[in-house]
Amino acid sequence: MVVELISVGTELLLGNIVNTNTQFLAEKCALLGLTMYHQVTVGDNHDRLAEVIRTALKRSDVIILTGGLGPTEDDLTKEVCAEVMGFPLVEDKHTRERIEEYFRNNIYKVISDNNWKQAIVPAGCIVLDNDNGTAPGLILEKYGKSAILLPGPPNELYPLFMNQVYPYLQKLQPEVIRSQMVKVCGIGESQVEDKLLDLIDKQQNPTIATYAKTGEVHIRVTAKAATEEEAKKLVKPVVKEIKNRFGDCVYSTKEEETLEQAVVKLLKKYELTVTTAESCTGGLLAGRIINVPGASEVYNEGFITYSNKAKRKYLDVSKSTLKKYGAVSEQTAREMATGGVFATDSDACVAVTGLAGPDGGSEEKPVGLVYIATYMKDKVNVQKYQFKGNRAKIREQAVVKGLDLLRRSILDNYR
Amino acid sequence: MVVELISVGTELLLGNIVNTNTQFLAEKCALLGLTMYHQVTVGDNHDRLAEVIRTALKRSDVIILTGGLGPTEDDLTKEVCAEVMGFPLVEDKHTRERIEEYFRNNIYKVISDNNWKQAIVPAGCIVLDNDNGTAPGLILEKYGKSAILLPGPPNELYPLFMNQVYPYLQKLQPEVIRSQMVKVCGIGESQVEDKLLDLIDKQQNPTIATYAKTGEVHIRVTAKAATEEEAKKLVKPVVKEIKNRFGDCVYSTKEEETLEQAVVKLLKKYELTVTTAESCTGGLLAGRIINVPGASEVYNEGFITYSNKAKRKYLDVSKSTLKKYGAVSEQTAREMATGGVFATDSDACVAVTGLAGPDGGSEEKPVGLVYIATYMKDKVNVQKYQFKGNRAKIREQAVVKGLDLLRRSILDNYR
Repeated sequence: MVVELISVGTELLLGNIVNTNTQFLAEKCALLGLTMYHQVTVGDNHDRLAEVIRTALKRSDVIILTGGLGPTEDDLTKEVCAEVMGFPLVEDKHTRERIEEYFRNNIYKVISDNNWKQAIVPAGCIVLDNDNGTAPGLILEKYGKSAILLPGPPNELYPLFMNQVYPYLQKLQPEVIRSQMVKVCGIGESQVEDKLLDLIDKQQNPTIATYAKTGEVHIRVTAKAATEEEAKKLVKPVVKEIKNRFGDCVYSTKEEETLEQAVVKLLKKYELTVTTAESCTGGLLAGRIINVPGASEVYNEGFITYSNKAKRKYLDVSKSTLKKYGAVSEQTAREMATGGVFATDSDACVAVTGLAGPDGGSEEKPVGLVYIATYMKDKVNVQKYQFKGNRAKIREQAVVKGLDLLRRSILDNYR
Repeated sequence: MVVELISVGTELLLGNIVNTNTQFLAEKCALLGLTMYHQVTVGDNHDRLAEVIRTALKRSDVIILTGGLGPTEDDLTKEVCAEVMGFPLVEDKHTRERIEEYFRNNIYKVISDNNWKQAIVPAGCIVLDNDNGTAPGLILEKYGKSAILLPGPPNELYPLFMNQVYPYLQKLQPEVIRSQMVKVCGIGESQVEDKLLDLIDKQQNPTIATYAKTGEVHIRVTAKAATEEEAKKLVKPVVKEIKNRFGDCVYSTKEEETLEQAVVKLLKKYELTVTTAESCTGGLLAGRIINVPGASEVYNEGFITYSNKAKRKYLDVSKSTLKKYGAVSEQTAREMATGGVFATDSDACVAVTGLAGPDGGSEEKPVGLVYIATYMKDKVNVQKYQFKGNRAKIREQAVVKGLDLLRRSILDNYR
């Protein structure tokens, strides 16, 4: 079954915003086993929008339109789509009541005549309740084709799609699609692909796809079958084989679990607390850990020691080490991690010192050189990295490697 | 002049990556005063790509294609575009030499037969040297239409476009377009629009556009004229008027300057150093400051005091304050900022304490409640905020407000 995405909005044509909705929908459609050949963006213009819808209905089975369902005169998606497909517009009582209720509960918002426009729907269409806004989702079915109209704001689109459109599309598909994620860290995308080459080469069902993220690779295994159970049975041995091949590089097999969540989970499991001592990453590593709800169980305090003086004052890095080896050195990273544990009541410390640039590099110590150390159970583990990219990119990679080194140190010392 | 964007790549149709190239190109085309009606994404498929190019050449004057210029068999953009427009393909000696040189300088990369494919170009086209890869950009001109083919990787696309395509498009335009940015902070987008309503209503040349960012609004003033001087003359008084209306809310009038850069610039101007004392933002505020190259002149050290114990230990927040008012309170924020300055040699401190959720909220102190304080010249400035959104969104907003409060405190105390 072929699906086509149509994004409606002048703000996209002007480059005011990045079209993240399309990526979200495309990924979910791929997950459903749907085929996609075209994605189109068009402005809030009657004739051009009508032409785009007509073309899409000719070449695709399902079209998903996002945006242009708002209450203003500029918003035309529903009207134009109904016109092209030959649906009269009628008021939907249920939606009118929901809009009334929405405004009763949002006393700061003023209801205008325009808002009632959102209760008008194509006659006979499926209305999808929107719990986060006043524009309902709509599904128009005719001649074996479906047009799915969804609001543009991501906080309305995402739950509406996942809760109501995803199951609808699933039912249209003759086969059941199931997939599982394996998330790996500490190994590059091309190495991951090399290690999976034989599996990828002979893949048919399930298929294996890799996605490169900063410092991580996500591997998705997807199977089609007549029943959910059968699909799961196809996925399971391949996931097991991948986990075997990548061993400790695998940090999660859960779709939504982030690297920092995996790290915090491990810290909780072994009842450990951790502190951070950051130079070039300057708080970003702590920031990632604290992004996990409930991080207070494992994280109490941390240091940003950007200057040499601060490294000495808070982490007791010795003057002679800084003089002899410099702030960006294995020795300094080692003393920072050790000092972090002794300065706090924490069980572990992860320390980062490096050159994020753009200035300050030399032949011996080029920009991108970063040392990361963990201290745990009286042992220090220091790793040297040479990152590429600009200042932000170098710091981002250092944060991921810092989280991963912490994760591996916990496994090495406590498992 | 109407321009259309065509992104070529199966990875976009599968939702593996977000299409940031399109936003980049759309913004730059808007800046050039070009009109855009359509953006299309299509896979690496001969027939569908040819159809998309044919349609685009019919309805637009300039088409910009990105992606599909690589060395593999999947990469078809150049071949299909040349076929549709009726250009024979020939080897470009200059490009062949550049590819040879590229591989000489990149000893780790292995040259394959496929790579020479990238030296084949449509006869008579304009070849744009690519300094960051082996695929040159190409411009095909016929029947008063232009097709511009560019490589997909952003680090190749962006410089190629800015240095070679932007001036080419500028020359096609009969008028000169100039724009200037005014970046404001501490005032919402709808308030910004209200304050500009009379200017926006009567706008024709220059035009005023607003762009909402997290905690910021960017206002772009754009004028068209026969010469650059005239265009600048049209922009200048409007920018002056906007600056007058928003006063200290304006933090920059430079296109590329970020809020943290503006803050670091101010700190340097008044020769001040700053420290940070963060609870809920947990290092992210420091992380933003340190993202500015040369931040070491103004920032030496900082604290992440997530637990109450850490707030007492490093910032000397009194036990009774924490007990009586709680960690998320005006009083605690005040003592954190004060303690930060006294614990370090810094001239100023910005402190953040709040509830990022999702748990831990109450009727009296709901999730999203954040207190931010600055200490400077023996004075404390505390502000209370109630943010909306999830944990990450609340923390992100708190960081922006922290940077802005720091900026305003410097202006209040030192200007």
